[in-house]
Amino acid sequence: VSAGLKKSGRRDVCIIAAEEPCSAAGVFTINTMAAPPVIISRAHLADGRLSAIVVNAGNANACTGERGFDDARAMASACARALHCDPSAVAVASTGVIGVPMPMQQVLAGIAEAATSLDSTAGDAVAEAIMTTDTFAKQTALRTTISGRTYTVGGAAKGSGMIKPNMATMLAFVTTDAPLDAPSCDAILRAAVATTFNRVTVDSDTSTNDCCILMASGAAGGRTLEAGSEAHTAVSAMVTEVCGELARMVARDGEGATKLVTVEVRGAASEADAKAVAFAIADSPLVKTAIFGQDANWGRVAMAVGKSGASIDPAKLGITFAGIRTCVDGTAVPFDEDEAAQALAAAEVEILVELHVGRASATVWTCDLSYEYVRINGEYRS
Amino acid sequence: VSAGLKKSGRRDVCIIAAEEPCSAAGVFTINTMAAPPVIISRAHLADGRLSAIVVNAGNANACTGERGFDDARAMASACARALHCDPSAVAVASTGVIGVPMPMQQVLAGIAEAATSLDSTAGDAVAEAIMTTDTFAKQTALRTTISGRTYTVGGAAKGSGMIKPNMATMLAFVTTDAPLDAPSCDAILRAAVATTFNRVTVDSDTSTNDCCILMASGAAGGRTLEAGSEAHTAVSAMVTEVCGELARMVARDGEGATKLVTVEVRGAASEADAKAVAFAIADSPLVKTAIFGQDANWGRVAMAVGKSGASIDPAKLGITFAGIRTCVDGTAVPFDEDEAAQALAAAEVEILVELHVGRASATVWTCDLSYEYVRINGEYRS
Repeated sequence: VSAGLKKSGRRDVCIIAAEEPCSAAGVFTINTMAAPPVIISRAHLADGRLSAIVVNAGNANACTGERGFDDARAMASACARALHCDPSAVAVASTGVIGVPMPMQQVLAGIAEAATSLDSTAGDAVAEAIMTTDTFAKQTALRTTISGRTYTVGGAAKGSGMIKPNMATMLAFVTTDAPLDAPSCDAILRAAVATTFNRVTVDSDTSTNDCCILMASGAAGGRTLEAGSEAHTAVSAMVTEVCGELARMVARDGEGATKLVTVEVRGAASEADAKAVAFAIADSPLVKTAIFGQDANWGRVAMAVGKSGASIDPAKLGITFAGIRTCVDGTAVPFDEDEAAQALAAAEVEILVELHVGRASATVWTCDLSYEYVRINGEYRS
Repeated sequence: VSAGLKKSGRRDVCIIAAEEPCSAAGVFTINTMAAPPVIISRAHLADGRLSAIVVNAGNANACTGERGFDDARAMASACARALHCDPSAVAVASTGVIGVPMPMQQVLAGIAEAATSLDSTAGDAVAEAIMTTDTFAKQTALRTTISGRTYTVGGAAKGSGMIKPNMATMLAFVTTDAPLDAPSCDAILRAAVATTFNRVTVDSDTSTNDCCILMASGAAGGRTLEAGSEAHTAVSAMVTEVCGELARMVARDGEGATKLVTVEVRGAASEADAKAVAFAIADSPLVKTAIFGQDANWGRVAMAVGKSGASIDPAKLGITFAGIRTCVDGTAVPFDEDEAAQALAAAEVEILVELHVGRASATVWTCDLSYEYVRINGEYRS
């Protein structure tokens, strides 16, 4: 519903609810200034059960002191009252400006209205209500049938600035009808997030409000899936695929982005090194502006490899920029600038770095850095 | 001199030389893709003696393989031949595009020409010849008289992108006529750089070519200054002040910068924590775009404090943004938006963060992130 938190008048409050309490797990920001809704939700998820998630966009309820905690608790209570469930079975997620008290009268009115308009076909409205500077709503779903039983996994997420999730992206919600217990939810979600949301960066800034929650209702029927079973493995793979698809949408829709950039690092001495190199490249404003300018300035990739702190051998470095080999054995190789310009005009650009010092690899998704990023963030609060 | 390395036709090759071999010390980038001139200069400075520095702008001679080493050595040799000194007494510094072989014919002609036009009043020409995207030449000098003897310290530096020095800024050269031995040069330079050039960031990107070199000719006369003596202390303070002034010029002239931003962190548990918090703020694209937009969006400072990994207590955080108290005890305090807008319109903005968990502090200098940064770096190589 539209509760009036967004100046645009768009939807800004929503509730994701299950008919019966679900198994659930969440991962949250490791920013030490974590917002009250993050801290309340973490507590409410301690028992691995959740009936609903109440979400607002337009205000992050961060740096709001004791009042912020009272407000987050009041949101959970209002949702629980309306849905006749336990307040501790309600998670709260907020996104928007930091350091402004929540306009609780509007928020509570919005929660009351949302609770009366729950609808199993309202996924679009949820994906829309959680948007801030996102330019498109982000949702995806997968379905599979194992031994005659059909399992569905769906998810929605929002970006699109202050994105270097370190547990999850700003906000992401994944639901499934598969019968999973809480430990399975937790294990599946953590594994999925590690290689999806935690491999995305828009601007290297980790939000105070990141959270990703998985709810499993069991409505698909059958007994609780056991780890290692075919159905458990299939559901886990679908959760990872849904998270990966949403993570790539978040990168593609990073603030001001004109391109989705995939950075792949191979041949690193360790996975930590591979990640460090990939993020040093993906976070580099110089690499990102070069891609915006459609300039095959691969020297900036070499710079980022070198500043990453990872163990490398400068004489072995290989760089393939948008499919064009630009650096072999640490040395420039001539390439066709016209061909490079054409490759860089595409909506998706891949940077492949081969370190040739080990066998570890990592992939990170990001976007370019454009005038529009500066405009959005120079004007954001005004 | 103009050797034709810059498309603009501006000066791009220069020599800084002393009449007699000097005591000298250098600090260099820790980027593991360090360029050949960095590696050659480090070797030539091993004995703490230097007669000259040969510098070019327009080409970084980085990622150029074996040929890059040959070219850097050839530059030192050509300079030494022209000045009748030992090639190992010549340091080489290069700045510009990465991954393009040096146009040695032009470079060698430039060195020959520069060597015939040495002039003790040519400091301006040096500061100009080392510029790349800098908008103004950066030099400063200080003079003091101790016990009837006058000592002078002068320096020149260049910025202005790929700036998060981790030993020194892109290129900085400091000279003094004080009689210092090589260990004194080294100790004085390292101490000065730690709190000056190593506390500057423009875009969080550490160059492959950073270097800062101090040459001490002893031309002021008198015996070698002993550590702890009044004159040694005074010269050391002047070197730090010259480096600090140059470092602030580099930040003020960061690519596309409209403002010099000083980030001061107080009350940290350790100096490492204070530095981590200050750099998390100074490197945050969201903080930098807010300052460009003259928006007192202090919540982004709180976000950066939280993502820094430093030990903090969210309930004790204080933030003063452009002189206006916006956050006390981790909670927003109301402030006058008009007053804030006026304060943020100034050419210099200070962000003060008080952690109240210890006694350590750190100051870092940076600039805002503007459309112009994106333009400069989207078009740089084209």
